[in-house]
Formats: sequence, C-alpha cells, structure tokens
Amino acid sequence: MDDHTSVVFSIDRTSQMPVFQQVYEGLRERIATGSFVSGSRLPPTRSLAVELGVSRSTIVTAYEQLVAEGYVEGRQGSAYAVCDMGEVELAAKPKPAATPISAPKRPGRKPFSPGVPDMRHFPYRQWARCVARVARNEPESLITPGDLFGDLRLRQAICEHIFQWRGVRANPEQVLITAGSGDALEICIRALAKPGDRVGLEDPGYPQIRNFVSSLGMRSLWLNVGQEGAELPPSSGTKLPCLVVLTPTQQYPLGGAMTPARRREFLSWAERADAWLIEDDYDSEFRYAGRPIPALASFDRNERTIYTGSFSKIFSNNLRLGYLVIPDALTQIFADTLRRFGGKASIMPQRALATFFEDGEFYRHLRRVRRIYAERRRVLIDLLKSELGGDAQIEDPQAGMQFVLSFPDGCDDVGLSKAANEQGLSVSALSAYYASDQPRKGLVLGFCGFSPEELEEGVKTLAPIIRECLDPPPDSRVRS
Amino acid sequence: MDDHTSVVFSIDRTSQMPVFQQVYEGLRERIATGSFVSGSRLPPTRSLAVELGVSRSTIVTAYEQLVAEGYVEGRQGSAYAVCDMGEVELAAKPKPAATPISAPKRPGRKPFSPGVPDMRHFPYRQWARCVARVARNEPESLITPGDLFGDLRLRQAICEHIFQWRGVRANPEQVLITAGSGDALEICIRALAKPGDRVGLEDPGYPQIRNFVSSLGMRSLWLNVGQEGAELPPSSGTKLPCLVVLTPTQQYPLGGAMTPARRREFLSWAERADAWLIEDDYDSEFRYAGRPIPALASFDRNERTIYTGSFSKIFSNNLRLGYLVIPDALTQIFADTLRRFGGKASIMPQRALATFFEDGEFYRHLRRVRRIYAERRRVLIDLLKSELGGDAQIEDPQAGMQFVLSFPDGCDDVGLSKAANEQGLSVSALSAYYASDQPRKGLVLGFCGFSPEELEEGVKTLAPIIRECLDPPPDSRVRS
Repeated sequence: MDDHTSVVFSIDRTSQMPVFQQVYEGLRERIATGSFVSGSRLPPTRSLAVELGVSRSTIVTAYEQLVAEGYVEGRQGSAYAVCDMGEVELAAKPKPAATPISAPKRPGRKPFSPGVPDMRHFPYRQWARCVARVARNEPESLITPGDLFGDLRLRQAICEHIFQWRGVRANPEQVLITAGSGDALEICIRALAKPGDRVGLEDPGYPQIRNFVSSLGMRSLWLNVGQEGAELPPSSGTKLPCLVVLTPTQQYPLGGAMTPARRREFLSWAERADAWLIEDDYDSEFRYAGRPIPALASFDRNERTIYTGSFSKIFSNNLRLGYLVIPDALTQIFADTLRRFGGKASIMPQRALATFFEDGEFYRHLRRVRRIYAERRRVLIDLLKSELGGDAQIEDPQAGMQFVLSFPDGCDDVGLSKAANEQGLSVSALSAYYASDQPRKGLVLGFCGFSPEELEEGVKTLAPIIRECLDPPPDSRVRS
Repeated sequence: MDDHTSVVFSIDRTSQMPVFQQVYEGLRERIATGSFVSGSRLPPTRSLAVELGVSRSTIVTAYEQLVAEGYVEGRQGSAYAVCDMGEVELAAKPKPAATPISAPKRPGRKPFSPGVPDMRHFPYRQWARCVARVARNEPESLITPGDLFGDLRLRQAICEHIFQWRGVRANPEQVLITAGSGDALEICIRALAKPGDRVGLEDPGYPQIRNFVSSLGMRSLWLNVGQEGAELPPSSGTKLPCLVVLTPTQQYPLGGAMTPARRREFLSWAERADAWLIEDDYDSEFRYAGRPIPALASFDRNERTIYTGSFSKIFSNNLRLGYLVIPDALTQIFADTLRRFGGKASIMPQRALATFFEDGEFYRHLRRVRRIYAERRRVLIDLLKSELGGDAQIEDPQAGMQFVLSFPDGCDDVGLSKAANEQGLSVSALSAYYASDQPRKGLVLGFCGFSPEELEEGVKTLAPIIRECLDPPPDSRVRS
C-alpha cells in the first residue's frame, strides 16, 4: 500500500554532484519548502531506490543525513517521517549568477612581469611522483603536526641547501617553515616589535612590504638605496628602528649587491643598536655569472640576522612555502609567537618537498631553469639594445629575475607603464617602487616567464612606446 | 700523470645526505678553507668516481654545481680548476647542537584540551588515495594558481556543503579559501577596517582573536555574552564597531546558541550601523541531538554577514584550510585585499579536498567521528556526575567539542587548572577566556580527542583537584 509521499525528481548522472547528494538535496528542498507535509512519511528506501535507479545504500545515506540534521525522524528498518520544521528558515531568494571576480586563466603572464617563474617549465611529473610517494608511504606526514616549526625533514633539507648555496650554517631547530614571505615578515614583526615601533625598509623596495608594516601598526623608516646599498639607519634617537628588512644580495628592484663594507657596517649597527636584520634572500639562486655572494647571515658572527628564503620564485607562488632561519637566541620568542597567533603554513606540501630535495630533483630543476633564464636575460638585453640603441640604459646585475631599464629624471615612467599595459603588456614603473618623492625613473622588466618569441613580441610593442616617451615628436614638445 | 689535488674524504652511505651533495660539500669546504689552492685542478671526474666508489655522473653533478656557484672553472671534457676565492668568507664557527624548542611528539593530546579532533580516527588512507589520485591525474592542480580565491572545484564543494548543512546559499564566486580562521579574520580586518577602528568581540571568546585584533591596530569592543547570546553593540557614537565577530550557533567557549530574537536584532543592527558581521561557524557540524540551527548567514536577507568556516576541527588543524563566504557586494574589495597582501592558503591540498568531498568521503568521515564524539561526550558527562555529584554543574549544549563545568564565583579556576596541568592534564580555566574583570568561573573541557579510557583516567586525576577546590578541608579554610 502506497501511503508515502511521492517523490518527483530524477537523478542527473552527468552532474558533478554525487548521487546521494542529489537525493538528499531534492528531499531537503521539498521538506523545507513544505512540499512534504510535516509528519508525512518518506518512501521506503527500497522503493525509492528502484524509482530513481540508484542503489539502496545511496538512499539510506541520504535519509540518514536528513535524520542527523533533524529534518526527518526514524531509522533504517522502519518508516522515516518528516519532522515539524518550525524555525528552520531557508533564505529563499534565488541567487543570480554572479560575475566572476577574477580574470579567466590565461595561458601565461604578460611580458614583462618581474619575479614570475615560467610554470611551463615546472617539473609537474616529478613533483607529482614525490607527492604520490609520500601519500602511499607516509600518509600521516600529509596531515600530522610533527613539530611546531614544521616538517623536520624539510627543515634538514633546507639547512643543507642554505649551507651549500648561501654559506649559512644553521641547525634544523632554527628553521621555521612559513606560508611565504608575507607570513615570514608578519611573524618577525609580531615576535620582535611593538605597535608604533619603526621598521627600516629599503627605498625602493617591495610595495607589499609596506602594506604589512602599516597594517601591523608599525611605522616605516625609509632607507635610501645608493650605489653601496641601503643607507644605514640612525644609531639612536626616536627614529631608531628595531627591525630592518634588507635585500643585500640582490637589491629589489634595482639589482646589484650591497658592498662588503656596507654589509659589515649594517652588522655592526645592528649589534650597537640591539636591533635585528631581516635578510630577504628571495631569488639568490639565480646568478648567471660571477662568484656567488654569500648571505649576510653567513658571516654575521653576532647572530643579529634573521634569514628568510622562499620557494615562490623557484617553485611556485601558490605552494605558499618559505622559511625563516632564526638566531638561537630568538627561537623561544618565535615559538611563543607561533603559539599565540597560530602558524599559517600548511603541513601538506612539506614532506613532499623534503623528498624532492632528497632525490636531487630540486637541484636538477634549479639548474635547468637557471640555464633557461640566463638565455632569456641575454635575449631581452640584446633586443632592447637593438631597438633602443643608446637609450637602453640597462643595469645588468647578471643575476635575478628582472632588471631595470633606466630613464632620465624627467621621464614619466608611470604614464609609460600605463600605455604599455594598455597594449597588453605588464610593465612596472620604477618610480612606483619608491616612497621617496624623488624617485629614479625607469622600468622594471622581468624575463624569466617568457619565451624568446614572447620577449621579442613584447619588445616590439614596448620599444615604440619607450621611444615616444624619451624622444617625443617635435609638435608634442611645443604643446607641453 | 697525477697533477691534480688529491681528495681526502669518503662517502657515508648511511647518511641522509645524498651522495652528490656529500661530494659537493666535501670539495666546497676544502676550496673555501684554502685546502685546495686557487688555480689547482680538481681530479678528473672518472678518477674521483673510482676513488669514491660512486658513479661518474654523480661527480659531474657535483663539479657542475661548483662551477655554477663560481668555486670552480671549466667544463666537462676538460679540466676543472679552482677559482680565486677572494671575498667569499664562510662563518667558520662550529654550530653547537641546539636544544629542540618544541616538545617531542606525544602519542596524543592531554585530556581535556578543547577543540581538538582525534587524529587517530583521521581517514589517512582515504585522504592519501585522494592525494595520490590528484597527483596522478591532475598534477597541475597541486601547483597552478587557477583562481585568485582558490581551487574552483573545492569552492563548489563548499557551496554544496554549506547549503546542505547550514542553509547558506552562495555561489562559488563568493567563496574564498583561507589558511585557517586566523587568516580569515586578518583578511576581513584588512579588507573592511582601518587602524583604530573598533571590532566587536564576544566576551568570553577565543583568546587568539584578541591577539590578531590588537596586532592589526584595531581596538576590541567587548560584548558580554548572556543567556540570549552576545549583547548588542551601540548603534552610534565613538564605540560603534565596524565589524563584529560572533559564534551564534555554538558560543565559544560557553556553548549554546544565540536566541532567534537576538540573531534578528544583530542583523537589524548591522544594517542600521552599516557594519559587518563575521559569523565564525567553527564546529557546527558537531550537533548530537536536536534540530540543526541554521547559520546566521542563511537568513540574512540584507547580506551583512560574512560566513567563515574551517576544516581544522573536522579534518586537521595543520592542513591550514578554511573559507570565507563573502556577500556579493564585498567580493571586489576582498579581491583587492588579496592582491595587496597576497593570499596565504596553499593550493596543494585544495583539489584533493574537493575530490574527498565529491567521493562522499568527507561526509562518511564526519558522520563517523560525530558518533564517536557523541559517545565520548556522554561518557565524560556521566563520569563527572558520578565523581562530583551535585558539584557537577554542566552546561550541556548537546553540540560542539567541549562544554563548561561551572563553578561558584569565589572559586579560583585558574589555580585549579594549573594544579590539574601539573598532574599531566590540559584543562582551561573559563575565566581565562574573559576580558571582563568579573568573569564566570569554571573549566572548559574537551572530550573529542580522548578515548573513554583516557577520559576516565583524566577524570580520576581531575575530580580530587576539583573537590579540593570546591570543598577544601577545614584546616585550609582557617588559614585563608
């Protein structure tokens, strides 16, 4: 005898939604909107299974979920009845299809975005193999905390890496895995500074750093970058910073290294001022010629330098993995800070990255892309020189993922970058990296993410815009 | 003719360090310390391979790395010679073995830590299968950005989840993947508030939230939690908050839901005050009896509620994944904020979690642990009642991962929790969750992470301490 409510919907097997969820949702909607009257019975599980053409366990799963949520009462083996819904209201207004807020994925970034690796050369298969192997053999490591500072094997691999490549000696106990360089900076500021304190920042420098510093209630102290590197902060007084963020190996965005003399002066300053240096060593593995410049931290015998590295440039910005190397004297303070605020680095990629190192895949990848990037750097420099001749004032540090094309002081580099970006490029004006009201002018041009053909096309578009800016036609001069 | 420098070291095959790295490091050390004189030749690769008992390609790899770093000149096929090292200094001081800063991993947390899932019941194999499958079939998704707000399939799965379980209707375009609840709160504050603004917080509440709010330069406005839920903020004046963080479904730590009337009052208040509500729906899936309480966001027709959820309680705190559901009107602002500060959520776990949902594994896991936790809740309540009799004033919301054991106002719950923790437990004093100087007294007891046997042992330790505190022996009364 059919005394149950008839169910009028069907299963869409092409849908992404699992079948039991379709059953669940169909029933719940009808219960919540009152189509199924309070107290009425749901069909027996076997009948509904036949009616919808699905397995009985699927129906049972959907029914049990409705029971768990209080929409239905009953249990398997006897009848299920609809509860009195009372106060559960659904916001019944339909959702209009929203416009996607982010641009659809393009095949690659636009020339000449600085600091972006070419993901077409990412070793997807090797990385996937490491991930799969960890999933098979060490599944707990994908999930389980391990240590407060992160996966120990990854921290060991990082110790070896920074020792070999940067001369930095540290124990794994000093290595803290972060969720990238923004997270690293936040942890340092939260550990070492109080709101209102000053943080010394290079000018020009990463625009994002300013956002973090002011967002955390600190004040920036701008340190102008000259030929020798960033100028020294004062040693006393109200403008004394407790933290200074430096890029001593490869200044961002100007390129070039801080001189050995200036580096030693900074180390002395930090010791005298009882301050801390944060060495942002963001892409130091990309050196194409000349001797490697050891990290500031590698010869800081007073251990005033916090070394921060990242896998964003070598690997991917989306993995969100970086690391801090903390002086012994500070490890406890950083541990306390992590407990107060919680860490943000996901455990999941860490063991896989450790095995990626241990297998030598990381170095193979690094050497491979370094050769590719070295070639692209050479191509872009040649193209610019060929198109712009003497106007191509290029500061070539023979390292890094971008370089500066300098312009005369009177040039409107912001306007130029806007014009270029309207033509489908992505160029950054050098003056935009400055806090100073007397910025140098130029363009910051990245080359790593683009094939020689893409670089050539980009230069074809960019060069006329530059020429027009540097050498405007006579009639436009008259007007201005 | 042997005119090359003799290499005196050997390979340790039991070491974790890969062989080519051992070769590299041995050579580099000798070059940097001057054992190998500038200009001298390294051994031919074939000879050294024989000498060390490794493959020739291993030696070539090590040599090429030295070339890349500028320690050695030459190329395969001709001789390699040591460069003039000049200014590369190594900090030669030996590193003493440092004391580990975090406690060694214990088999589990100590009773009665609140809010911790029992990782012994985590579905490692099923999760590992999802991860391995993604690694095999969709390796790019482990690495590639996709969308600014995160993996689209995961956001779709979240939309279905929150619709079914919480009644919240949203498009995937409104869902932003975060690196956990701390990250979610920071993003909201950075998007919607300016330094100096007030943020309304429940009192009592999560201690960590206070740290974020003050660290970001905001001021807390404490909203006392009464029987109906958090009190309403003022509607105008200097204490008007622009943001209020609520736990309306399950107040943390007191438990219990905000009354429907108070919820409606908050929604009206937000509309009048042009303010935003952040609904922290942190463990609402754990309801053991009674009807589900719909999310505040589900009946907010004015869309003033930002809904935030997390996988930390159901899954693992270390995956660092949560989500924000953003009103349509705010998606652009949040997108801009993400670009300004960078996102912190790792892409890697996202597609795997999406498939975990799509396969129904998430719900299977959730239902399973919910049954286990319901049982443990019952066990702990029974144990406490049996040991403490009438002194067991338990507020049992029949939901959540912890409950409050209330004490009389005069009780020193902080001292009690210290005494308990000295005995190997982990109990939190209720008054520690308060900003107010008139906090309620009690203990916040978690039960999910502990088997019935562990709960029983924990209560055996805890009960005498409680009895002593509530009912001290006569002679100690005389002294105080």
